Amino acid sequence: MSKGLVDYQDGEHIDQNVLIRDADIRTAKNGKPFIALIFSDSSGQIKGKLWGAKPEDIAQFVKGTIVHLKGLREIYQTTPQVRIDKMTVSTDPNISVDDLVPHAPINKSDLEAQLNQYLLEITEAKWNRIVRWLLAKTDGKFFDYPAAKSNHHAYAGGLAYHTISMLKLAAAISQEYPQINQALLYAGTILHDLGKVVELTGPETTTYTLSGNLIGHIVLVDEAIVEACEALNFALTDEKIILLRHMVLAHHGQLEFGSPVRPKLLEAEVLHQIDEMDASLTMISTALAHTKPGQYTPRLFALEQRQFYQPKL
Amino acid sequence: MSKGLVDYQDGEHIDQNVLIRDADIRTAKNGKPFIALIFSDSSGQIKGKLWGAKPEDIAQFVKGTIVHLKGLREIYQTTPQVRIDKMTVSTDPNISVDDLVPHAPINKSDLEAQLNQYLLEITEAKWNRIVRWLLAKTDGKFFDYPAAKSNHHAYAGGLAYHTISMLKLAAAISQEYPQINQALLYAGTILHDLGKVVELTGPETTTYTLSGNLIGHIVLVDEAIVEACEALNFALTDEKIILLRHMVLAHHGQLEFGSPVRPKLLEAEVLHQIDEMDASLTMISTALAHTKPGQYTPRLFALEQRQFYQPKL
Amino acid sequence: MSKGLVDYQDGEHIDQNVLIRDADIRTAKNGKPFIALIFSDSSGQIKGKLWGAKPEDIAQFVKGTIVHLKGLREIYQTTPQVRIDKMTVSTDPNISVDDLVPHAPINKSDLEAQLNQYLLEITEAKWNRIVRWLLAKTDGKFFDYPAAKSNHHAYAGGLAYHTISMLKLAAAISQEYPQINQALLYAGTILHDLGKVVELTGPETTTYTLSGNLIGHIVLVDEAIVEACEALNFALTDEKIILLRHMVLAHHGQLEFGSPVRPKLLEAEVLHQIDEMDASLTMISTALAHTKPGQYTPRLFALEQRQFYQPKL
Amino acid sequence: MSKGLVDYQDGEHIDQNVLIRDADIRTAKNGKPFIALIFSDSSGQIKGKLWGAKPEDIAQFVKGTIVHLKGLREIYQTTPQVRIDKMTVSTDPNISVDDLVPHAPINKSDLEAQLNQYLLEITEAKWNRIVRWLLAKTDGKFFDYPAAKSNHHAYAGGLAYHTISMLKLAAAISQEYPQINQALLYAGTILHDLGKVVELTGPETTTYTLSGNLIGHIVLVDEAIVEACEALNFALTDEKIILLRHMVLAHHGQLEFGSPVRPKLLEAEVLHQIDEMDASLTMISTALAHTKPGQYTPRLFALEQRQFYQPKL
Amino acid sequence: MSKGLVDYQDGEHIDQNVLIRDADIRTAKNGKPFIALIFSDSSGQIKGKLWGAKPEDIAQFVKGTIVHLKGLREIYQTTPQVRIDKMTVSTDPNISVDDLVPHAPINKSDLEAQLNQYLLEITEAKWNRIVRWLLAKTDGKFFDYPAAKSNHHAYAGGLAYHTISMLKLAAAISQEYPQINQALLYAGTILHDLGKVVELTGPETTTYTLSGNLIGHIVLVDEAIVEACEALNFALTDEKIILLRHMVLAHHGQLEFGSPVRPKLLEAEVLHQIDEMDASLTMISTALAHTKPGQYTPRLFALEQRQFYQPKL
Amino acid sequence: MSKGLVDYQDGEHIDQNVLIRDADIRTAKNGKPFIALIFSDSSGQIKGKLWGAKPEDIAQFVKGTIVHLKGLREIYQTTPQVRIDKMTVSTDPNISVDDLVPHAPINKSDLEAQLNQYLLEITEAKWNRIVRWLLAKTDGKFFDYPAAKSNHHAYAGGLAYHTISMLKLAAAISQEYPQINQALLYAGTILHDLGKVVELTGPETTTYTLSGNLIGHIVLVDEAIVEACEALNFALTDEKIILLRHMVLAHHGQLEFGSPVRPKLLEAEVLHQIDEMDASLTMISTALAHTKPGQYTPRLFALEQRQFYQPKL
Repeated sequence: MSKGLVDYQDGEHIDQNVLIRDADIRTAKNGKPFIALIFSDSSGQIKGKLWGAKPEDIAQFVKGTIVHLKGLREIYQTTPQVRIDKMTVSTDPNISVDDLVPHAPINKSDLEAQLNQYLLEITEAKWNRIVRWLLAKTDGKFFDYPAAKSNHHAYAGGLAYHTISMLKLAAAISQEYPQINQALLYAGTILHDLGKVVELTGPETTTYTLSGNLIGHIVLVDEAIVEACEALNFALTDEKIILLRHMVLAHHGQLEFGSPVRPKLLEAEVLHQIDEMDASLTMISTALAHTKPGQYTPRLFALEQRQFYQPKL
Repeated sequence: MSKGLVDYQDGEHIDQNVLIRDADIRTAKNGKPFIALIFSDSSGQIKGKLWGAKPEDIAQFVKGTIVHLKGLREIYQTTPQVRIDKMTVSTDPNISVDDLVPHAPINKSDLEAQLNQYLLEITEAKWNRIVRWLLAKTDGKFFDYPAAKSNHHAYAGGLAYHTISMLKLAAAISQEYPQINQALLYAGTILHDLGKVVELTGPETTTYTLSGNLIGHIVLVDEAIVEACEALNFALTDEKIILLRHMVLAHHGQLEFGSPVRPKLLEAEVLHQIDEMDASLTMISTALAHTKPGQYTPRLFALEQRQFYQPKL
Repeated sequence: MSKGLVDYQDGEHIDQNVLIRDADIRTAKNGKPFIALIFSDSSGQIKGKLWGAKPEDIAQFVKGTIVHLKGLREIYQTTPQVRIDKMTVSTDPNISVDDLVPHAPINKSDLEAQLNQYLLEITEAKWNRIVRWLLAKTDGKFFDYPAAKSNHHAYAGGLAYHTISMLKLAAAISQEYPQINQALLYAGTILHDLGKVVELTGPETTTYTLSGNLIGHIVLVDEAIVEACEALNFALTDEKIILLRHMVLAHHGQLEFGSPVRPKLLEAEVLHQIDEMDASLTMISTALAHTKPGQYTPRLFALEQRQFYQPKL
Repeated sequence: MSKGLVDYQDGEHIDQNVLIRDADIRTAKNGKPFIALIFSDSSGQIKGKLWGAKPEDIAQFVKGTIVHLKGLREIYQTTPQVRIDKMTVSTDPNISVDDLVPHAPINKSDLEAQLNQYLLEITEAKWNRIVRWLLAKTDGKFFDYPAAKSNHHAYAGGLAYHTISMLKLAAAISQEYPQINQALLYAGTILHDLGKVVELTGPETTTYTLSGNLIGHIVLVDEAIVEACEALNFALTDEKIILLRHMVLAHHGQLEFGSPVRPKLLEAEVLHQIDEMDASLTMISTALAHTKPGQYTPRLFALEQRQFYQPKL
Repeated sequence: MSKGLVDYQDGEHIDQNVLIRDADIRTAKNGKPFIALIFSDSSGQIKGKLWGAKPEDIAQFVKGTIVHLKGLREIYQTTPQVRIDKMTVSTDPNISVDDLVPHAPINKSDLEAQLNQYLLEITEAKWNRIVRWLLAKTDGKFFDYPAAKSNHHAYAGGLAYHTISMLKLAAAISQEYPQINQALLYAGTILHDLGKVVELTGPETTTYTLSGNLIGHIVLVDEAIVEACEALNFALTDEKIILLRHMVLAHHGQLEFGSPVRPKLLEAEVLHQIDEMDASLTMISTALAHTKPGQYTPRLFALEQRQFYQPKL
Repeated sequence: MSKGLVDYQDGEHIDQNVLIRDADIRTAKNGKPFIALIFSDSSGQIKGKLWGAKPEDIAQFVKGTIVHLKGLREIYQTTPQVRIDKMTVSTDPNISVDDLVPHAPINKSDLEAQLNQYLLEITEAKWNRIVRWLLAKTDGKFFDYPAAKSNHHAYAGGLAYHTISMLKLAAAISQEYPQINQALLYAGTILHDLGKVVELTGPETTTYTLSGNLIGHIVLVDEAIVEACEALNFALTDEKIILLRHMVLAHHGQLEFGSPVRPKLLEAEVLHQIDEMDASLTMISTALAHTKPGQYTPRLFALEQRQFYQPKL
């Protein structure tokens, strides 16, 4: 991995193409306007401020512009930022916006191909049809959305990538513990976070919708399964339907994390554990990827502020 | 209130008609059969054992029989029970089973009449129609079911009685705080525990259904609202529908008590608080009704094992 | 309600009379003096800084002055503030300090009249006399003090207004649950926060006294009841006195919120619940009053950082 | 220490004089009366049952009788008890009731003498007078009462003994940390549990009074200090009085253990810590005194169910 | 799986060979001796009592005897037991003690073979040598010990079986997340519970040793690694050694579960998660194996008292 | 105590010799370099910034330099700092670096002498030899290291001073409770924090080593005891060794504070309590030493953010 924005150390000079992810015009204490900027490349983001912004600066350095940035990486009140020395609109024809945003490590068509394999293995007909009906209904959003607003897999395609990673874990674990109902585990895994498609506004400026806030993504998937059953003419009293809904409702594992019921099926417990496992391993690995041997990661908010060590080995 | 089964003190003699709520044939250590009994009258229940039961005893003292019971009230391992001196099948023609089970302090037709008044005041058309559609669908069960398996309002009609009590509180509080949307509060109050009709098996031998266990009564009401919207052709994206669903989903107040979201509407917070208020005041009052002045109630399980004092005043 | 200081959005221009609630002279990094100001009107408060303050500014812009303020509402490190464009001492003869501070929505004489009605209904003679003796002893402060340093009812008259609101709730609830001893509930409600008169230094610059810090307002009321009993010659062993003291001591509901005992009377539990209800509904309503339809309130500190939604309805 | 009742192991034969602490007539399953007994000697208590009790047994084996007991020590449902082989009213003229109840290891006159020494060292006049006034008011009960209903120092004289032990710790610690105000620490130590004299009904059959339950021993001492100030004409606003009251109010250390305020004085923190230290060391030592080398104590309820090890050393 | 002791329902007749795991002579209330027995077969255990035991019964029905048992399965105070109708010493030559105790589903030589494969993949020399040195030192106990006193894998060979299951999970997960240092994960997995060999007294009558109680199995493994380093002449300051010790010390994941440090390595987090996963899936699966379709397991103590559902599917 | 750096109030002028503890060159918003400084004297530390630093300033105002500082004490974003008016390299020949750093109130040779006295009283030979072997191994570091990175005794010599203070408490308490094994308590006290010598990098710039982070100081002492036993040829299975290791392992008292086992010896419980007592009393006293009568200390982080009151007495 070549050096990205998040890899610079304090005092190093940045000199590369970046995308302006956000540009906010504000007024400094001396009364002059400045632009508060967020830059990104494929490695992540960094903040910066353009002091004494002229009208032409304000006009050209808008959100979505690719610029060539020169400056010093420094720490301002514990947050890394870049002190801008020079910034010009990029004229490099070989750089596109897509190169300068984080993305899933597997491309969309591969994700689709892998998902299709797992769909074939949902051997229970009702579960298979519900899953396919719901995936069809998202109209491709399943492959475009992030898995979360921040924390882990917070990039376009993150939802599908997180789901595929969990399916691989599910396959490996089912092989160790053959008493697991693999079809149920696969169906639950694919559906568990599908509510994010409704809860979050989209891959670009990710925020919560009213439904996301007042109903929550767990119940939103449950609602979607109920709708699928209506459409497919499956009775809600069928044990198979109750089991599938339980998989989704219980996947946060504990009431205080938002599940209205705790796991009461072997497969629901497994789904909860592989969700936690993929999320935590991804967060730790991402942080370690930008940590030098012999150093510690920053405190990871979603992992109870723990720091992890990068061995020198 | 005349003296009921739960009012006897240790060492007092019981001599009254009671209903056999449960009769279980077991074998004593000496190898002889005995019957483990649960008796009830309108004040509540007490246990007892008929040692050395003869075949004719086993034949006649079955669940649902009204008997005339004579015996001594005593404490066995901290639980009150009756030591049976004599027990005969009752021949009193004026006593019916209905007289010997706890029931709501208001009769069914009065509950219906009162509910109808509140329905008129749900002035928002969609909420009104959803509530009526769902009440109709319960096919009268709303007026027959208990509000809980144990703890509070755990008798036939308890669900309706608890709901009406909450509506009265809702009315009084809305008058104090006119910023409350009364229609939303009434609609949410009527629906909040409707899932119990699905979750519990019925008023007689109350237990949890598979849906009750794996999905939970909170999400079961939510599912019912979704079905009502399908039937009534209301869009699920309508803010009015989202608000109503939120009322039900958030009414336990905290995630660890099973709500998948915490209250985010003024009315949802009020609904949660009047639910708690009616439940706790009913539990305390019920316990105090059987406590002598200057004494304390037993420890109340659902109120964190607290005991309450009956003043001598 | 016309637009007040807390209603401005980011980037809007403020142009109105305000009161200087606080003015603190400090030195900027460039060595020049500036004034850190807090402005208020009847809607609430906002901060601002006057950079490069001249001696005449320092002389005239003191605490308690009414000024005409022009400036831009902006956000500085997540806190709203006003960037001052112009500020002149107000010459408007129709504006008084009283118009520019938050106040109870009911005036003092109405609060007194309402309180007197409830006093008449404390039908138990000892409770009635203790309550009247203690109210008299506060020498009117009961009607001048805030109910809290911040959070809810944090304005002059807030204590009386909070108490009256609770009495109204108490009246409504006693009607629903006639087993409640209304006289005890009213007496406890009036006394429950009376210790704030000792705990807080006053309505103007509200802070904690030594007694407030080392003894706490709950025990301070208890001490006051003990003093009243001495003065009125009531025995402390009288059950009536013990009950009344318990009402006050238990009103925070839980040990971890500072009550040395948990509620052990039905009326003590009710007092605790209506205290919570009025406090929380007031905080939510106050925040929603300044929130546009379709928006959320800021995170409310005293309600576990929750945000509430203002429906578009 | 010779072998006492609590020292017997399972299967050993008991043959000694004991006191009947409690005798309760009950009816066995076979309809015959039996006596449920609690025996004690100076080492502690044990339960036993006299099956098939005759009228003369019931007449003579009453509470307060000294009997010679022969029987087998056994475990019934995890609780030690004695299976009675023979029991006769003792005729030994050298045994008195006082020999057969647990008591403080120091006699009353020595406790008084030691307390007087510490009183001399309360060099602040107001604190000294308040402490003496309150001790006088207990009319000797201070030396007769237990320190708790169970757990630690739960015997006649336990309150005084616990207090003296704490004073010794206080003296030793003040010598290490001369910044401690010794007079304040001594005064607070003597008063801290004085409320037990009101809270508990007495040394014989220890239970909670109404004041103990509804007000609690912490606030009861506070009330007593307020009364003392009235009697001695000390102003409640005097810092010295506020400090002394704080010592008592804060001595449980944490709100959830019943203190309405947490320690905010160095001396209040010390008082809390030496209270915990004496209580816990006494409980552990008492349990270890009856534990053989290489064995563990039973689980100690008041020490979070921990077991302690008796080394073989 | 043929019907085992734990598979009988209430009221069914048992008629099979069983092993007497424990036989305790006690005295009944009527003064006659009885034997409290624990029986087992390969499916698990059940209790029973032989009332009115004759001397020859006491002589022959001792611990370790194989008997042919006839009786009724019943519930006594919520615990299943067998009411013994007939019991004779078994004369069946084809039954051995080994057939009548629970055992690991894989035999010892297969466990050894599988472990050897994983040892080959610990490609870091120091870790490999430490692991081999420590396994050698347990002198085969690693393959004989249970993994816990109760809860999961509580049978002879359970420790090795639990370890091998975790190694399989470790292999599968390392394949998904190639950033994991597989050698470190394998070494940590094999060592993580090796302290049980010291902590527990053995496979037969499993209890805690003094070291197990006062030092704990986590630190006991750490001590063993330190000893291995001394013996193998590896410096304790070598990062490789620190990493391996951290794997063991952190594997309980949280301080409150007894780890003195929380996981600070990616591999330590994985080790903790696969330990939890194998333990919980094993406990759930074991309970479900004896639960009929449509029924729930008993409450599982080590899984926060949850019950799991066996689908009818 | 003469006025030290931490004693100045807001707005007071500082004019004294100080040591530069840290000097960090940074760039201001206007692009010019400044020096972020930390100054100390024997009373503690304060921050300051030298704006517009010239090359000669950067050259001379380096870490370890003694300077004469003139400036104004002010508050910047809740943190005290000094606004530098003038700063010159000190030429005072009577001031040494040692005078300008906090240090233990007892000098090193006195600490050594006192420790030797306690060593004599460790009358058990094995404990005595282990303690002496380990103290010798630290090669004097025991007397140079701080007891913690911050919080309490965070200065050179703090570890020894904290240990000696605890030994004095241990001596006083053993006298009150003669059942305490004094030799065991002394040995455990001396060793309990010895791991800090490995965990922390040293007295100068105190931070955590890799062992400190991944293994923790509690287990590091345990490892050291194991090494001592190897060297001294003491069996690890000897009860005496297990007891001593338990003393160290359990001294944090609770699992969530990092002890892998809770105290299970009387002496281990005492060790935990005197550790807490000395740490908390020292923190409170240190804060009160810089607090004026009638004022409160700042919130003390390690004491759950509590503030303490300095009486006017």
